[in-house]
Amino acid sequence: MEDFIYVHRVKYYETDQMGLTHHSNYIRFMEEARVELLRSWGLDWAALEREGILSAVTAVRGDYKGTSRFDDVLHIRASLTEYSGIRMIFRYEMTQEDGRPVFDGESEHCFLSAEGRPLRLKKQRPDLHELLLEKLER
Amino acid sequence: MEDFIYVHRVKYYETDQMGLTHHSNYIRFMEEARVELLRSWGLDWAALEREGILSAVTAVRGDYKGTSRFDDVLHIRASLTEYSGIRMIFRYEMTQEDGRPVFDGESEHCFLSAEGRPLRLKKQRPDLHELLLEKLER
Amino acid sequence: MEDFIYVHRVKYYETDQMGLTHHSNYIRFMEEARVELLRSWGLDWAALEREGILSAVTAVRGDYKGTSRFDDVLHIRASLTEYSGIRMIFRYEMTQEDGRPVFDGESEHCFLSAEGRPLRLKKQRPDLHELLLEKLER
Amino acid sequence: MEDFIYVHRVKYYETDQMGLTHHSNYIRFMEEARVELLRSWGLDWAALEREGILSAVTAVRGDYKGTSRFDDVLHIRASLTEYSGIRMIFRYEMTQEDGRPVFDGESEHCFLSAEGRPLRLKKQRPDLHELLLEKLER
Repeated sequence: MEDFIYVHRVKYYETDQMGLTHHSNYIRFMEEARVELLRSWGLDWAALEREGILSAVTAVRGDYKGTSRFDDVLHIRASLTEYSGIRMIFRYEMTQEDGRPVFDGESEHCFLSAEGRPLRLKKQRPDLHELLLEKLER
Repeated sequence: MEDFIYVHRVKYYETDQMGLTHHSNYIRFMEEARVELLRSWGLDWAALEREGILSAVTAVRGDYKGTSRFDDVLHIRASLTEYSGIRMIFRYEMTQEDGRPVFDGESEHCFLSAEGRPLRLKKQRPDLHELLLEKLER
Repeated sequence: MEDFIYVHRVKYYETDQMGLTHHSNYIRFMEEARVELLRSWGLDWAALEREGILSAVTAVRGDYKGTSRFDDVLHIRASLTEYSGIRMIFRYEMTQEDGRPVFDGESEHCFLSAEGRPLRLKKQRPDLHELLLEKLER
Repeated sequence: MEDFIYVHRVKYYETDQMGLTHHSNYIRFMEEARVELLRSWGLDWAALEREGILSAVTAVRGDYKGTSRFDDVLHIRASLTEYSGIRMIFRYEMTQEDGRPVFDGESEHCFLSAEGRPLRLKKQRPDLHELLLEKLER
């Protein structure tokens, strides 16, 4: 499978008084990369939510490997590393353009119905279930 | 009428690489102060939204009179300066604890139903209409 | 002069519980568009700051003409509408892809030295002064 | 040692289109709670930074145990759970007022000089070193 790389240029409002990207923003960059990774697979997150297939973040983890600054262009490699039909884990490796590591993270998700109940994708949307199994990087 | 003062201590994540509170955050502080001003009048914004009385921001204006930094304690004087039954304007004066001016702003709002249609408060909730007229600072 | 259009796709974390882009984020989109407008003129904001030429926002104004939602692609037309050697005003017109208006805004800026003193660009950087005069839309 | 509880009322701009507090904001609440925990020990983060004692976040972890909404009042129990002279780990347990769990998290930090070099607190500020050892919850 080819690597999926999402590019994020650091905004001025994402910096803090140390002159660096504030650490909380990397959690937001993870979300941006995830949405675009899914789009690259033909999955439109906004449309899924309108259909009543929601997803909740159940855990995040992040290791700060380096720093980034205003106007830096981050390369974010995103991939699906676990999928059980109920739970997904995505992995994110963020580097500077020259490859210097900046941040490694993971996010864990479950599926929910519009009413907030756990949803088994295999039953509700077998097509998505198959797609996610296929995209899983082991 | 007594002045309503909302206090906001600047968070680290609200600073930018100039070492100052990022200018976009004052728009958020206006919202915080507005919610608490209404609460001081017995109006619970969260409950109103659940009831189907929404409010949309139709305009904002802000003048940056000074600067603020991490951990500064801002005093935000908020007041209702216009109310027509359809439209409200709030005014905000933000200073440092010692009175040095930081930011003056205004926000303009209209009322909407849960379906997004304009809502005449006078008709839907005459009690709120009367309250807002009473609180209006001319 | 050709129109400069900056494109911003609305992020999930930029929405609020009304299901819309939170109004404070448009102030941030103005900053994003401004940085890219200047870059299109060969002006690198990050480099200017490192050189000691800072710029402070002295005022913002915004009118909410419509709404936007997660994943909407905003087209932001940005232009310099006033420049006096001391003060700049930028104008921003944000629309949906199909042209429906979303937000019109302005931001006013002054130049500062690294020490926070007002800076006359004409004197300090006549080349930038000439460039801004040339780019001014009257 | 008595529990330190920091209280955060969820702001409107912290919600997302699911009607919940956006997951990235809990990372920011961790920072808010940490600053206030240190203040309760007599440590002024802003003053330490001015003195040239910086601290960088090296890792974060968070488990989403429940949800929160606009205007909810979160109780955040913060504590120092590891301290080695070089590295600190803080733990955060966030609940609703009635005790329902919302979020459990950890943040890991190292100390840096103003030049960005690793700093041994024991050497630079033995008083702070002793204080942190004393406050450590084992």
